[in-house]
This record gives sequence, C-alpha cells and structure tokens, in this order.
Amino acid sequence: MDEQDLRRVMDGRWADVREAVRRQVPPEWCRPALDLDRESHRRQVLERTRSLAAGGLPAAGFERAYGGQDDIGGSLTFFEMLGHVDLNLMVKAGVQWGLFGGALQALGTERHHRRYLGPTMSLELPGCFAMTETGHGSDVQSLRTTATYDPAAGEFVVHTPDDAARKDYIGNAARDGRVAVVFARLLTGDEDHGVHALVVPLRDEHGRTCPGVRIEDCGHKGGLNGVDNGRIWFDRVRVPRDALLDRYGAVAEDGTYSSPIENGSKRFFTMLGALVRGRVSVGGAAASSAASALAIALTYGEARTQFRLPDRDSDGSEVTVLDYLAHQRRLLPRLATSYALRFAQATITADLHEVQTGGTDDDARQRELESRAAGLKAVSTWHATSTIQACREACGGAGYLSVNRLTQLKADSDVFTTFEGDNTVLLQLVAKAMLTEYRDHFGELDTRGTVRFLADQVVESVLERTGARGIVDRLAGMTSGAGGDGSDEDQGRLRDRTWQRAMFTWREQHLLASLARRLRRAGTGDDADAFDAVNRAQGHMLRVAEAHVHRLVLEAFTSAVEDCRDEGTARLLGAVCDLYVLSEIEGDRGWFLEHGRLTPAASKAVTRAVDDLCRELRQHVGSLVAGLGVPTSWLGAEITGASAPGSATARMAG
Amino acid sequence: MDEQDLRRVMDGRWADVREAVRRQVPPEWCRPALDLDRESHRRQVLERTRSLAAGGLPAAGFERAYGGQDDIGGSLTFFEMLGHVDLNLMVKAGVQWGLFGGALQALGTERHHRRYLGPTMSLELPGCFAMTETGHGSDVQSLRTTATYDPAAGEFVVHTPDDAARKDYIGNAARDGRVAVVFARLLTGDEDHGVHALVVPLRDEHGRTCPGVRIEDCGHKGGLNGVDNGRIWFDRVRVPRDALLDRYGAVAEDGTYSSPIENGSKRFFTMLGALVRGRVSVGGAAASSAASALAIALTYGEARTQFRLPDRDSDGSEVTVLDYLAHQRRLLPRLATSYALRFAQATITADLHEVQTGGTDDDARQRELESRAAGLKAVSTWHATSTIQACREACGGAGYLSVNRLTQLKADSDVFTTFEGDNTVLLQLVAKAMLTEYRDHFGELDTRGTVRFLADQVVESVLERTGARGIVDRLAGMTSGAGGDGSDEDQGRLRDRTWQRAMFTWREQHLLASLARRLRRAGTGDDADAFDAVNRAQGHMLRVAEAHVHRLVLEAFTSAVEDCRDEGTARLLGAVCDLYVLSEIEGDRGWFLEHGRLTPAASKAVTRAVDDLCRELRQHVGSLVAGLGVPTSWLGAEITGASAPGSATARMAG
Repeated sequence: MDEQDLRRVMDGRWADVREAVRRQVPPEWCRPALDLDRESHRRQVLERTRSLAAGGLPAAGFERAYGGQDDIGGSLTFFEMLGHVDLNLMVKAGVQWGLFGGALQALGTERHHRRYLGPTMSLELPGCFAMTETGHGSDVQSLRTTATYDPAAGEFVVHTPDDAARKDYIGNAARDGRVAVVFARLLTGDEDHGVHALVVPLRDEHGRTCPGVRIEDCGHKGGLNGVDNGRIWFDRVRVPRDALLDRYGAVAEDGTYSSPIENGSKRFFTMLGALVRGRVSVGGAAASSAASALAIALTYGEARTQFRLPDRDSDGSEVTVLDYLAHQRRLLPRLATSYALRFAQATITADLHEVQTGGTDDDARQRELESRAAGLKAVSTWHATSTIQACREACGGAGYLSVNRLTQLKADSDVFTTFEGDNTVLLQLVAKAMLTEYRDHFGELDTRGTVRFLADQVVESVLERTGARGIVDRLAGMTSGAGGDGSDEDQGRLRDRTWQRAMFTWREQHLLASLARRLRRAGTGDDADAFDAVNRAQGHMLRVAEAHVHRLVLEAFTSAVEDCRDEGTARLLGAVCDLYVLSEIEGDRGWFLEHGRLTPAASKAVTRAVDDLCRELRQHVGSLVAGLGVPTSWLGAEITGASAPGSATARMAG
Repeated sequence: MDEQDLRRVMDGRWADVREAVRRQVPPEWCRPALDLDRESHRRQVLERTRSLAAGGLPAAGFERAYGGQDDIGGSLTFFEMLGHVDLNLMVKAGVQWGLFGGALQALGTERHHRRYLGPTMSLELPGCFAMTETGHGSDVQSLRTTATYDPAAGEFVVHTPDDAARKDYIGNAARDGRVAVVFARLLTGDEDHGVHALVVPLRDEHGRTCPGVRIEDCGHKGGLNGVDNGRIWFDRVRVPRDALLDRYGAVAEDGTYSSPIENGSKRFFTMLGALVRGRVSVGGAAASSAASALAIALTYGEARTQFRLPDRDSDGSEVTVLDYLAHQRRLLPRLATSYALRFAQATITADLHEVQTGGTDDDARQRELESRAAGLKAVSTWHATSTIQACREACGGAGYLSVNRLTQLKADSDVFTTFEGDNTVLLQLVAKAMLTEYRDHFGELDTRGTVRFLADQVVESVLERTGARGIVDRLAGMTSGAGGDGSDEDQGRLRDRTWQRAMFTWREQHLLASLARRLRRAGTGDDADAFDAVNRAQGHMLRVAEAHVHRLVLEAFTSAVEDCRDEGTARLLGAVCDLYVLSEIEGDRGWFLEHGRLTPAASKAVTRAVDDLCRELRQHVGSLVAGLGVPTSWLGAEITGASAPGSATARMAG
C-alpha cells in the first residue's frame, strides 16, 4: 500500500489549502484551553483569528474583485481543516467569514461588497450573523424582529418587539462584533414583505454599544467558551436605506418594494439557500473533530495495555488494548464512517464550488445541494458526537483528563447537532425535498409505468406480510439454506459493492415510497387529523432522510475508491468502505430483516463480516490514521506523546 | 391516578432518607458551578461535604458501635439522592464515606474502626481510596505498588517501583486527603501475598505532604472539577504493622502471614467484594442525574413551542415541542428506563442491606450481588450518558447554556462509565459469573435432562437456520398472517407482562447457552487460538450481560407495579413498564428477528406500540416527572423557571 497515494486521495482536490493550513497553524493551537478564564480564552481565540486573517486564507471564499480568490472549494476546505485545530477558532472564523461575510456577499449588492468585504476579510470589521431569536430558532420564517421603512427619513427602524424576539446565541456579539447582519421582517407602509437582512451597527470603534442597542452575554456554555455568544435587543434603531442587503428585495426612496423573485416564499428560501455554505462548513468541521478524536484514541489504543494474555501469566506480556475485538468494534467502524464522510464532504465541496463559481442558475441543482448539505450536516455532526464520546470512553480515565483533549472536543462539538439548523428539523427538510421530487417524478410516469410501480409495491408488501421475503431475497441472492452460515461465498457477496449499493438504494426507495403512501392517506382528514398523521410519520421522515444521506455517502466513497491509482490503496480503501457499509447495515439490520432484505442467517453473517473487517483493518491502523491527514503535532493530547513542538507537516499521526 | 401513591412507590423503603436529604440540601447546591475557578470550586464542594457531615446522614452506613446507624440501605439511598444534587458532591462524599470509610470498615478490624470511623464520619479525617494505578485500572490483581514487611522495625515499607505504578485519578488526593487506604502487594520474606490494603498518612494536620510521599494534581478534567483528583508516589514510606487492614490477611510481629481464607485468589475477590457498595452508589447516582436531566428537558418541552400547526397559520398558535412524536421518542422511552432503573436500584439496595446487615455468610448470594451491582452500574451509567445527551439536544441552544445545567450534568457524569470499573470490563465479569453458574447448573443435570436440553438447542438452531422460526414463534403466539398488522389483539399481546418477561428471559438464556457452546469449542486449541476464540466472543459476552441486567430490571419493575395500592398508579406504572420493555425490544429487534423471536410483522407492531405508548404517556408527563421525586427547586436550570428560592420539599417538579 502506497501511503502517498492514500494521502493524495484523502487530501483531494484542495490539497494545497490543507497544506497551507498545516503550515500556518502552530501545534499549540490544537491543545485544549486549560484553566483559561473566559475573557482570556476569548482574547486568545480572537488573536488567532486575526493571525488567520493575516495569513490570507480566509480570502478564498470572496470575490476576486474585492481582494478575494473566488475559490469556494478552498474556503470550505479551510473551515474543514480548522475542525482539526480548534472548534472555537473554527466557529469564530465561521461567524466572521462564513456567516457574516457570506451573508454580505450573497444577499448584498455591489455597494455592500465594496464597502464591507475588504474589512471583513482582514477582520478590521468583526461582524455578527443575527438570525436566531429566543422564540424562533428552527422556524426562521416566523422571526419577529421588524425593520420598518420610514420614507420621510429614508431610514429603516429596526426593532425588537419583545423578549422572545431578541436575537439569541449570536456569535461575536458579546465582545467583539462591530456590526451585524440582522434578519428582520421588512415592513413598508402596511405591507409585510417577510424576512430580509440589514446591516446594523452594534458598537463604535471604541467598542461602545451604539444607542438603542442592548447586548447581553450568553454567559458560560457547555463548550466553545472562547466564542462570545450574546443576545441583542434593538430599540427603534435607525439605519439608512442602503443598509438593506437588497439583492433579493429592494426598497426605493419612496418606500416602493421590488424584488427579482415575485413569490414571497420562494424569495425567502432563495435567500436562505444562498447561505448553504455555512451548513457545509459546520458538517465538515464536525467530521474533522471526530477524525482528530479517532487519531488520538487509536494512537493511544495501540500503546496501552491492561490485562495479561490468558494462560500467559508466565511471560508477563500484556495485551495491547486495540487487539481486543471489543475495542476495535468501538473505534474502527467509526473510523470507516469518518473516511466515508470525508469523501462525501469532498464531493459536496466540489459540487458547491461548481454551482457557485459557475454562476449557473440551475434551480434544481441548487435545491439538491441545499438538501444534501442539510442531510450531511445532520449525519456528520451526530457522528461527531457519538464518535468523540466513544473515543473518550475507549481511553478510560486518561480520556477524562483535559490534557488529553477529548473532553474539550466533546464539549465544543456538542452544539453542532443543534446550531446551523437542528438536526431533527434538517432531516425533515431533506425528507420533504425528497417527497417533492418523488411526486414530480411520479407525476411524469405514464399510466402503464404507474401501474407497474404500484404492482411492484403490492408484491413487496405481500411478501413482507407473509414473512416469505426472508426466504426469497431476490435482490441479494443471499440464501438462508446452505448459505448464510458464514461461508466464504457469502462473505464475498457481502463485500460486493453492487450488492451494497443495491441495499442502500433499496432502503431509501422503499422508505420514500411508503412514506409517500402514508402521507397521501393522511391528506384526507381534517386539520387535527392531518397534524396527527404527519406527526405519526415523523420517525419515518427522519429515517428516509438518513437513508438518503448514506446512499449519497456510499456513492462518494465508491468513486473515491475508483479514483485510486495504486492498487494497494484501492484494496485498503475498499475494505474501509466495506466496514462502513456493513456496520451501517448491521446497525439497521432490524429494518432490513423486517423488510425481508436480509435473512436471519445473512444478518448474522453481516455481524461476522464486521468482526472480520475489524480484525483485518486493525493491522492497518497506522496507515489509516495517517491517511486522515492530521499532523502528529496537531493531536494535542498528552497520551499520544504528541505535545512536543515541531513542524506540523513533518509527520502525520499514525 | 393517586400522585401520593406513585410517590410512595417511587420513594420506596428509605423514603425518610430521601425526605431528610430534600430538607437538608438547599436548592443552590443544585445549580451549576458557573465560572468558578478550580480552587474555589473545590473549596465549595468541601464545605458542602462538611455540611452533609454535620447533618448526620453519612453516618448511616457505619456501625452503630462507633457512632453509625447500621443502615446500609439508608446510606446507599443517601448517595443516590446526591446524584440529583451535584455529582461533584456525590463523588466527594462517595470517596470519603463510601470508598475510604467503606474500606476501613470492610477490610479493617476493631482497632481500625475505633480509631478511624469517628473522624471519617465527621470529616475530621479526609481520606483517599488509593487503588488504581496509571498502568492498571481495570486489572486490580496486577497492581504493582509494594508493601514489604520489615520484621526488625515491625513496619511496612510502602513503595512505588516506577511511574506506571503510581496511584492515579485518586479522589481527595490533590488537596484535602490526610490519609489513604493504599492497595499494594503484601510482601513478607520472599513471599508475595497479593494485593492488600494499608492506611498510609499523606499529609499532616497543616496540610503538608508527609516525607516520602509525592502528590501531583491530575489537573483540569472533563467534569467533576470540584473534586481534587491526584497522583501519589510512595518512596519507601514506613507505616506501623497495624496500618494493615487485616480482616482478611494479617502479619504477625515476626512476619508470619495468616488469613481466614487460604486461597489467595478467593481472598482477593472477597476483599474486592466487600467493596460492592461503591458500585451500587455510582450506578444509583448516575441514574439520578439522568432523572434530573429528564425532569429539566420534559419541563422545558412542555413549555416550548417552535412551529405553527400546519394549516393553522391563521390563529398563530404554535405546537408545544413535546407534542411532536419525534420529541416524545427522544425522551419518553428514556423516562421509562429511568423508572425501571429506579426500581432495580431499590431492589439491589434492599438486598445488599439484608446481606450486609444480616451478616450471613452466604457466598452464592454475595457473588450474585456483586455481579448484579457490576451489571447495573454499567447499564445505569451508559443510560445516564446517552440520556443526558438526548436531553441536551432536545433543549436546543438553551440546552447548551450552562445556566440550564444539562452540560454540567453531562460533563460530570461522563466518567461514571469508566470509573469504579470500566463498563466493558464489568459486563465481562457479569458474563463470566453467569457462565460459572450455568456450568454449575449444567453439571447437575442428569443424563436425561442434558439430552433434553441439547435436543431443545438443536430444534432452536434448526428453526433459526431455516428462517421458519419467524413464522412459528411458539412462545409469543404472535402470528404473521392475520395478526401482526397492528390489530388490537396484537397490541394487547405486546403489552402482556408474561410475554414480555418470556422475551427477556429467552434472550438471556439463549445468549448464555450459545456463548457457553462457543467457548467450549474454543477450549480445545492452543493459547493463541484460545485468546482469539475468547476475543471473538467478547461482543457476545457484553450482550449476554446486558440481557441479564435487563431481565433483572424488568423483574424489579414488575414487582413494583404489583406493590401499588392504587389501581390508577398501577395502570400508569404498567404503561411505563410496557414502554421500557417495548423500546428495549425495539432497540434489539434485529437480534429477536434473527432468532425467530419476532416475525417481521410483530417487529413492526412493536414500533407502533412504542409510538402509541409515547402518545399515551405524554398526557401524564407532569405526574411522571413529579414521580421522580426531584423537588422543583432542585432542577437548577433557568429554562424550567425553577431557580427561585423555596423549600425543596414544597413542590415536586412536574
């Protein structure tokens, strides 16, 4: 196996950005903030953010005309890499250049770009992204802050009607932010044009809060205490007419409203869609923090011993913890998922780069990207939460000591599952998008196609009801008689990529079709019944969205394996892909069994195959950890013996 | 439903202790330690521990002859209640009165009791329990600190041979501990008598470290920063001969060793077994912290809204978050498990009380208790980790603010899964105990019984292999034809306690029998093969132990329901028990399907039944939260509106 080739595949298209971050970030930035009071921690994070600004990388995502580099993919890769370093820094940078800067660029027009993008990139103008309110986080369309146009003065009056409408959890607000992009209902005359964004000053150059603005510190948090989250109230704050970011909605001097998008709801979702990069960055950074945690736990697991070999008391040698199957089981399937998510992240990064750089107005593609970003964000952040937890436990008491960094990774990454869109809500959005597409597609089928489709469904459901599907299993060809007993033939079939893809695809399609049927039936009752029916289908919606994401992740992984030049690399990555797929199938084997897609014997064979893959890949843990591309000096954990200074690019963990 | 009766059942036999703790603990103790530096936090926790000492409750667990109360059950309930208050306080108290005091009492003899128990109870003598070493946490039998007897001086020389043998993670060591019960290999002449415990002074009354003792602070941790964990090295520290806690092993003046238990290994495990209370306390406290987290998240979930009702935009009313099935699904099955674990904890508390108060020398019962304590500790602490995480996420961004306490509960409870025995190791101990008992039992069967047993196994495995079991399902009578489609009849069957118990029992027995078969086959190869075979069975061992614990938990729950005086209470608790059982079966439905214990149709019916139970119990959330017995003023979270002062006993959360 050629480690260089593995590295090439893993670093991907923006390898140069990865290398630049590795060069620029000193190892001490990766060490946990021990016993630092909140103010010092915030100052430290701000200084490091300034240092990043000086290094020039944050310019990647902005327009070349204003000093940027028009390199969307590079910008996303930059944020992804910061996830290996420190999530405080990643969030601080993400608020400034991703959310605040991104909103200016996506929702503003030329005069905003000319005025703000330069000082935004250089961090001369620290800014906030003031969207969430205490009363409305997930339901952005219902925000209640108002921006009322006063034609006499040619100004907007920004106002917080009550405490539930205060802006909440706003990064950069409590300490450093000078201005904010504020999301508020735009009111002209008697008309409510829905949520729009305006630039509102928060503090003057001396850091004094502007008149009419009230800011409160959110105080101590479960993590990310180096980021200054705050609450903001506006008491009839006046801003000039050109403070409105008017790409999608403008107000003339006399108060006349105009927009290139007539439909209000479509306009709103177009504006939100323009902010898709945030979700991609958050998912990528969370996945990176999980990868760092795995690098720490696996490195320690290869060094740590606990018990003697049974019946080998005499020679006193002890078993390396990672040689225990239970330990492998905790970490290696998660390592495989980390690999899988890396490729999915690379794919969405490249696709977003195409769409946003190409400037094409392909609505369908944009919608698909938004949906994929939402789903991947949910899956990646949940993966991070559970993986970092597993790593902490796998390192025992040492994992609980802050010098070993895992507890900080855990605390800092925790909120990623609920910010930038609550995962549960995001997955429901994904499911809704899938249903829409399904309906569109279904509508296009001719009568004959529809009948065939329905007939197919009937056969499926009869087979399921009778339990006969377990014996038939047409798709997999896994038999429950002679096969399914762990024979080589069966094991080979489980590792056949075509079978694996068919399993993921079938699950997604079956869940989608049955969800559509359920909701169609539900559409016939009154309001209360409709709510009840949709409510009953909620779990189903979450599952269909997750199945969809995993199918896409597998596609990304499959093409990455095909992209390997070196045969050994392809073989190794192929085995990692097998472990990802089979542990996912194992985790969901209840569903596959219920739907006759696995026989009991095949299901047990999946478990054995996961065991076998763990044992097989355990031999390659060094290479696989190195493949994650986290420099040894970046591990930041005493137990890895990696806190010694040294060039970050010199040696990869593993 | 009679809330008083629910409360009576939940508070159980030691209701008076619960009430006393509720009276003694002021609400501010339950609030998170915000922005407190480590030294202040430790001082605060020490002061509160002193205040508990002054209140007299810690005396419960000690002998009446020395000022105690001989109330083992009361003592365990006291620690359990502290889990609702603050895990820092619980651990500090647990180290002092549970581990340190418990070791003195269980392993020492009269002179130790006379000398130490008084000042231990009053906290005049803060002590440590110095067992774990850096190199050996789980494998206590391999500890390497030595205590060598010097007959000339009549003293033991306590020594740390190298850094891997330093005592590590020792609570009370870094700041407050004056003495330690040190576990070390006892050496006399050329003989190594294995691990014993001695009392070794650490600091004088001015807090100065004693000569030869070196102590280092473990530093910042992922949580529990109010507890002063430290590392201890001994450099040939001399202690008098009577420092040896000599109940199970004594050294005469001339160095002659004697013990009431001849077999060294049996002696060692008897000594460890005497310390079983620690694990029971840790499991109980973890379960309490999960219950508090649920009380917070459910209270907030009943108050919080996010989205409008679909098609009800007009009246503007929004849906309470807890009315969403997905939200119920996150929290209510965990609430049911919290109820279940409360009853299991009450049962083990009462049983331990009987055994240790009765002073019976029933070896088998003692062993069973140790095994149950280990298993329950593992299940309860993992339940706490995942439940508190779910509660944090269910509260969104608010859940991430430290004033809402969930993040502190999460951080503090995290290490419970690895201390007092790593969960993975503990479950393997449980499995080993089960195998021993199984072999004993199996050995007693006559030839005919053996044959019948084996025949039964053969039938089972044939049925499984052919997949026919799914259709047969003799035990449940769940059919896959007309039934299994969610009919009332099926739903009734799923909620039949006899069926539920049979499912849990069958799972446990089947796993145990097949594990025994696997290991028997494995016992024939050479050493390396044997390791490999046992290693392959590791996952199986963990599963059998968990299945065992859940069967015991269900038994405890079942008798608690039977104990209800009020029919309404019994009905409500019955539904909670159903939810516990069915969500557990749902989570493990892959296994039940593989083994033909559920048909696909029945498996889907289980999922629907869990949904239905969530909807049903959602109506009783107020009563069920109140039943947990956590005073509203103890919730300590701003989002529950419960930080106002007031008598803790006045009102229960809910």
